[in-house]
Amino acid sequence: MIEGRQTKSHLNRKLKMGMIGGGPDGFIGEVHRKAARMDGKIEIVAGAFSSKPDKSAQTGQDLFLDPGRVYNNYQSMIENELKLPTEERIDFVTIAAPNNLHFPASKAFLEAGFHVVCEKPMTFNYEEAVELKKIVEKTGLVFAVTYNYTGFPLVKHARHMVHTGQLGKIIKIVVEYPQDWLITKLEDMGQKQAMWRTDPDVAGAGGCLGDIGTHCENLAAYITGLEIEEVCADLTTFMPGRRLDDDINILLRYNNGARGILTASQMCAGNENNIKIRVYGEKGSINWIQENPNYLYYYKANEPIQTLRRANDYLCDAAKRATRIPTGHQEAFIEAFANIYNNVADTIRAKMLGDEPTELENDFPKVQDGLNGMAFIKTAIESNNSDLKWTKMIK
Amino acid sequence: MIEGRQTKSHLNRKLKMGMIGGGPDGFIGEVHRKAARMDGKIEIVAGAFSSKPDKSAQTGQDLFLDPGRVYNNYQSMIENELKLPTEERIDFVTIAAPNNLHFPASKAFLEAGFHVVCEKPMTFNYEEAVELKKIVEKTGLVFAVTYNYTGFPLVKHARHMVHTGQLGKIIKIVVEYPQDWLITKLEDMGQKQAMWRTDPDVAGAGGCLGDIGTHCENLAAYITGLEIEEVCADLTTFMPGRRLDDDINILLRYNNGARGILTASQMCAGNENNIKIRVYGEKGSINWIQENPNYLYYYKANEPIQTLRRANDYLCDAAKRATRIPTGHQEAFIEAFANIYNNVADTIRAKMLGDEPTELENDFPKVQDGLNGMAFIKTAIESNNSDLKWTKMIK
Amino acid sequence: MIEGRQTKSHLNRKLKMGMIGGGPDGFIGEVHRKAARMDGKIEIVAGAFSSKPDKSAQTGQDLFLDPGRVYNNYQSMIENELKLPTEERIDFVTIAAPNNLHFPASKAFLEAGFHVVCEKPMTFNYEEAVELKKIVEKTGLVFAVTYNYTGFPLVKHARHMVHTGQLGKIIKIVVEYPQDWLITKLEDMGQKQAMWRTDPDVAGAGGCLGDIGTHCENLAAYITGLEIEEVCADLTTFMPGRRLDDDINILLRYNNGARGILTASQMCAGNENNIKIRVYGEKGSINWIQENPNYLYYYKANEPIQTLRRANDYLCDAAKRATRIPTGHQEAFIEAFANIYNNVADTIRAKMLGDEPTELENDFPKVQDGLNGMAFIKTAIESNNSDLKWTKMIK
Amino acid sequence: MIEGRQTKSHLNRKLKMGMIGGGPDGFIGEVHRKAARMDGKIEIVAGAFSSKPDKSAQTGQDLFLDPGRVYNNYQSMIENELKLPTEERIDFVTIAAPNNLHFPASKAFLEAGFHVVCEKPMTFNYEEAVELKKIVEKTGLVFAVTYNYTGFPLVKHARHMVHTGQLGKIIKIVVEYPQDWLITKLEDMGQKQAMWRTDPDVAGAGGCLGDIGTHCENLAAYITGLEIEEVCADLTTFMPGRRLDDDINILLRYNNGARGILTASQMCAGNENNIKIRVYGEKGSINWIQENPNYLYYYKANEPIQTLRRANDYLCDAAKRATRIPTGHQEAFIEAFANIYNNVADTIRAKMLGDEPTELENDFPKVQDGLNGMAFIKTAIESNNSDLKWTKMIK
Repeated sequence: MIEGRQTKSHLNRKLKMGMIGGGPDGFIGEVHRKAARMDGKIEIVAGAFSSKPDKSAQTGQDLFLDPGRVYNNYQSMIENELKLPTEERIDFVTIAAPNNLHFPASKAFLEAGFHVVCEKPMTFNYEEAVELKKIVEKTGLVFAVTYNYTGFPLVKHARHMVHTGQLGKIIKIVVEYPQDWLITKLEDMGQKQAMWRTDPDVAGAGGCLGDIGTHCENLAAYITGLEIEEVCADLTTFMPGRRLDDDINILLRYNNGARGILTASQMCAGNENNIKIRVYGEKGSINWIQENPNYLYYYKANEPIQTLRRANDYLCDAAKRATRIPTGHQEAFIEAFANIYNNVADTIRAKMLGDEPTELENDFPKVQDGLNGMAFIKTAIESNNSDLKWTKMIK
Repeated sequence: MIEGRQTKSHLNRKLKMGMIGGGPDGFIGEVHRKAARMDGKIEIVAGAFSSKPDKSAQTGQDLFLDPGRVYNNYQSMIENELKLPTEERIDFVTIAAPNNLHFPASKAFLEAGFHVVCEKPMTFNYEEAVELKKIVEKTGLVFAVTYNYTGFPLVKHARHMVHTGQLGKIIKIVVEYPQDWLITKLEDMGQKQAMWRTDPDVAGAGGCLGDIGTHCENLAAYITGLEIEEVCADLTTFMPGRRLDDDINILLRYNNGARGILTASQMCAGNENNIKIRVYGEKGSINWIQENPNYLYYYKANEPIQTLRRANDYLCDAAKRATRIPTGHQEAFIEAFANIYNNVADTIRAKMLGDEPTELENDFPKVQDGLNGMAFIKTAIESNNSDLKWTKMIK
Repeated sequence: MIEGRQTKSHLNRKLKMGMIGGGPDGFIGEVHRKAARMDGKIEIVAGAFSSKPDKSAQTGQDLFLDPGRVYNNYQSMIENELKLPTEERIDFVTIAAPNNLHFPASKAFLEAGFHVVCEKPMTFNYEEAVELKKIVEKTGLVFAVTYNYTGFPLVKHARHMVHTGQLGKIIKIVVEYPQDWLITKLEDMGQKQAMWRTDPDVAGAGGCLGDIGTHCENLAAYITGLEIEEVCADLTTFMPGRRLDDDINILLRYNNGARGILTASQMCAGNENNIKIRVYGEKGSINWIQENPNYLYYYKANEPIQTLRRANDYLCDAAKRATRIPTGHQEAFIEAFANIYNNVADTIRAKMLGDEPTELENDFPKVQDGLNGMAFIKTAIESNNSDLKWTKMIK
Repeated sequence: MIEGRQTKSHLNRKLKMGMIGGGPDGFIGEVHRKAARMDGKIEIVAGAFSSKPDKSAQTGQDLFLDPGRVYNNYQSMIENELKLPTEERIDFVTIAAPNNLHFPASKAFLEAGFHVVCEKPMTFNYEEAVELKKIVEKTGLVFAVTYNYTGFPLVKHARHMVHTGQLGKIIKIVVEYPQDWLITKLEDMGQKQAMWRTDPDVAGAGGCLGDIGTHCENLAAYITGLEIEEVCADLTTFMPGRRLDDDINILLRYNNGARGILTASQMCAGNENNIKIRVYGEKGSINWIQENPNYLYYYKANEPIQTLRRANDYLCDAAKRATRIPTGHQEAFIEAFANIYNNVADTIRAKMLGDEPTELENDFPKVQDGLNGMAFIKTAIESNNSDLKWTKMIK
């Protein structure tokens, strides 16, 4: 069950969080806030929620923030927060603005000494990601990328099963993420989310690929620990006039010889956020489905199917730590998101106290994961543009 | 989507919450806190978390509370909070202590002028419930009972479907709540939850009946609006030596002629919190299952089954208000609990501002619902002790 | 896998089957024929398919029968078949006519020396059933009642699990059979099936109770081997003007102390033939659902749910014998029905060869099962008419 | 519901069927027989069930056949049957022997004037398939290929939905067939099925590709009517020493611009015969899963999911014709197989009577479908051996 460092801490207060993005037009900013609030370890004290001053102010007011700590851009936020006494200023910042801001904002906060939580995809392009990794390593600060599906307890247990050999050698991975939210051309109807996510100048070179294809890539990597070696990508834009891909079908070859299929779409009617993964090994296979996330299906030849359920004693420690309530009462998306915040918070707190975080605390996606995502986007686009079947993954 | 009164409020702060119970041995107290935190409208500022001072203090420290506002019993909490300036003292209290404390604590807080959120079953016995209802009515304060399953968006939509006639006249209700947590005799092994919940001096006259049978009774009432007229109960204690029932099977007759089956158990191996309800009408029927709560199955003769999903436009306003994130990403138990807190918070805020809450804000279980639960417990036990098939429901 | 006595038999031919009922207005007669044909052990050679000569003749022609062996009633069938050489005449008869014919036809065929397969409910009333049992015992002929749900492989394995103690002592049974086919008043629209099944002069005293309630009673008995001791029944006719019950809710007490709920309905919108059963024991529980019949769900506290699947090595011999094709390819209703015919055929063949059938061959519902069904109908109606909660089961 | 030409026929007898293959070591032969028997239109009268005389004789005896019509090879069967009077000899033959016999046996029977039902893949290689098509066209006889998944009622309705525009323009197809039966190296353990299916000299050039990949190809084609234009195949042999592929992952491009993923495996632990297909269109999508075959899931954006169920009035005529029993009672694999036989039988009977079969009768896979399967195998292997991403489909 969720617990943490506050119980043994001399740092007798919640961590202070600032936020870039998360204004009234998006949804993910408020998810970050709910996730941050859930376990009572974090309080939101500052934000630059929108580039429009009235929108930023409105969000600040809704959050009952001190108006003096509601900013219009990340630069002024850094400048002003640094003027506050150490105990009052933010301990870390969350960056939930569109993709093209991820790198400059992350860079600025890191260089100013703040820990960072950053939305995915981590940067606008691969080159920024390479540079960001160097900055993180140089500063030694905590940097998390919110590949939030890694926060589900049963995903953590899936990883545990692979790593403890319960599936044998992995031979095949099928990971999918069908959505339908762009089956109508929302970007022409003034929907802000759709506008920036289909705009290559803001979202980067990948559409569906960048937004949800990277979730697939990361989920498979988190669970299996395998690395993609070669990619064969067929990227499609089904919606006439759309500027980025909205459907991807990719064959994969992994470093251990395993084969993979990665498919995602924003055009699959009736699919909401239907990310799911199947991992097949020589001894067993597993199936996890985000829309029913507290169950993990485990298959072996000539044996009954096993359905593992959240919060049971037979799950691994990482799954247990990611669990708040007893069996049968579901935990879901916000709780999974909160598991990233919980681990980030305890890791930051450990650092602030001069401790090393435990392995369980340190379990959240990091800058290398973000970099892998950007490499995947770049490689898939190269593959799509190539006549050759296989394109080597950028390392 | 969740929004609220803070945006238009002159009361420019979070509501202040105190808590009775919720110490380290239980789980529901922390659920209340997570639910209260979720939407950023409430902050926990005081508590008497345990009758053991060290345990109460420990919980207060874990929550980063001012030690001066961590108490050892509800009486001292009331006394001290009343000494604080109005703007600093708690606005409302949550009572999450064992059942026998619900009435005296609720009574004391109400009479001291505080709004109250109380766990179910509302009181130790029916007579207390009758008296409590009078006190609530006299004080005019907000009083909520956390029948939390009413907080799920699809439960709200189920109610909407019944009330808008989409099922026609209701003819049959089947509501079930199988658990297995008492299939071993935990009360003999020092498990605190099991000890008090199987002790008639603390839990009251109903075991399984009081703890989860009342959830069934309330869920059916919330969705259908029907009243039970007659009860035919077979209550069983399967575990040798257990002092309260651990399995109940009850036939019901409703005020419109509908028939019902209500069954619950703490002895059903492999069932976690498997509360589910089916409502059958002359034109259609619905099925809701708590362990997969974001789906509502709608059946009509000679038509495809419809699966309604959370967060879609076709759902009713109450369901939409009870929704935080887009389709496909699940919301679950804590969010449903938070929906009660969200509505309670907006209703309290409205009262504090001299407004009337809206119908959507005012949607949470109240003292009459709590009283109905206590009447159901009493009637079911009378029926079980009777040789006659039907026992009239106490009104 | 299905095999049988023909391989070792000196009786080198298919068994010859006659049929009473099964004309063009019903559906169950053709199900019997498909089931009988499936395994190549039985050929249909004679029938009195309808009391209307033209309808009987038409069915005979559709089946490519010798017109000389198509009759207008069971009496002439018996008379004429007895005139044929032993090797040509029917070996057994299936009675698939309305309920009021079951007894006189069964009696006549048995007394003429023919084995009998009879539809359920076995007779028009309890008294006939008592008499029929005596006749069967006196003649020593094979008599089967087509409680066809006992033919499913996973039902057989469920029984095996109970009988080998995998569930521990059984404490609770919940068995349900909701349908919706009488939610419109088909009996007023000329639908033949609905007309006779709602007519107490043809169907007997039970409507829903007799038609599908008895399936529930039998399924629970087949799986658990327990006997009902006491019944508390609430029988309802929801459709105005209908002459028999169309919805039943019954509490049960079994001879080992187990409690039960048995509910069935013809008024549950959107339910087709949704018979399902849950059996709870002190060590584990199982769940079987006819509409997805090749899966059996097995639950134990603190363990993953197990889903057992048809045709796997881990199933019991009776389940394996009831299986024709490998895993993953479903077998269903007709195959389950055919399993009764397969066992009946091998049992008849054994008798014809002077052998004893094996235990596996002899696994089909018999006259005692039919009698239990009639006792259940009679007892449930008595209970419904009583003010007392519990009515003793007729023995 | 199933009916047929016998009711209006002057050909007042069942059709007579012979069989090549189907001896005691396989399973599919007996499936053919059960399917052929089901509807009472066909009787099995002759067979060359095995190349081993004793095995052929044993099967003939189990089927109660005239020993004079049990043969040791197809040549002697043709020779002897032709000597019988027309009314006594077989009307058609089913070829259920290993793949390398499909072509020579089919050719011989067709040229001898017999209608043919042939297992898939239709021939040993593409060239044989081209020639066989010419022979079928020249003789004008009925030739069916048992792509049996096309026999399921809900598959037929899926096709109907696509063809009536309920999904809009098709943009994406995902079809999968994971099995696990070769996850152990059965071909080294003397398992006959595994031995010939992994032997390129008997099975042909495709392993998993030929055995189940072709089912995927055909199912997608049957439902959508689209043609594959380009293939990008990654074929793998995971089992060391196996001589044919046991896992395939293929990207597809269809003639209307749709994209596809086709994946099959014999190495996916815990998967039995888990063939399933999703078809996505601009207006809606569908999902069909063979292991729960009587349900079809229909998705549209912003609408509840619809679950269509077998035997309901809202299904298309082809689905209704493929249905034997009312709603709720499942039909499955053998029934689907029987639907092919039923349509073949009525088509043959129509031809024998000088009639044209109706469109509904004529609904079964034909020589062109078999040829398409062989083209797909050949193209996929070419693609797998190519460095280029896309390989044009052989036409």
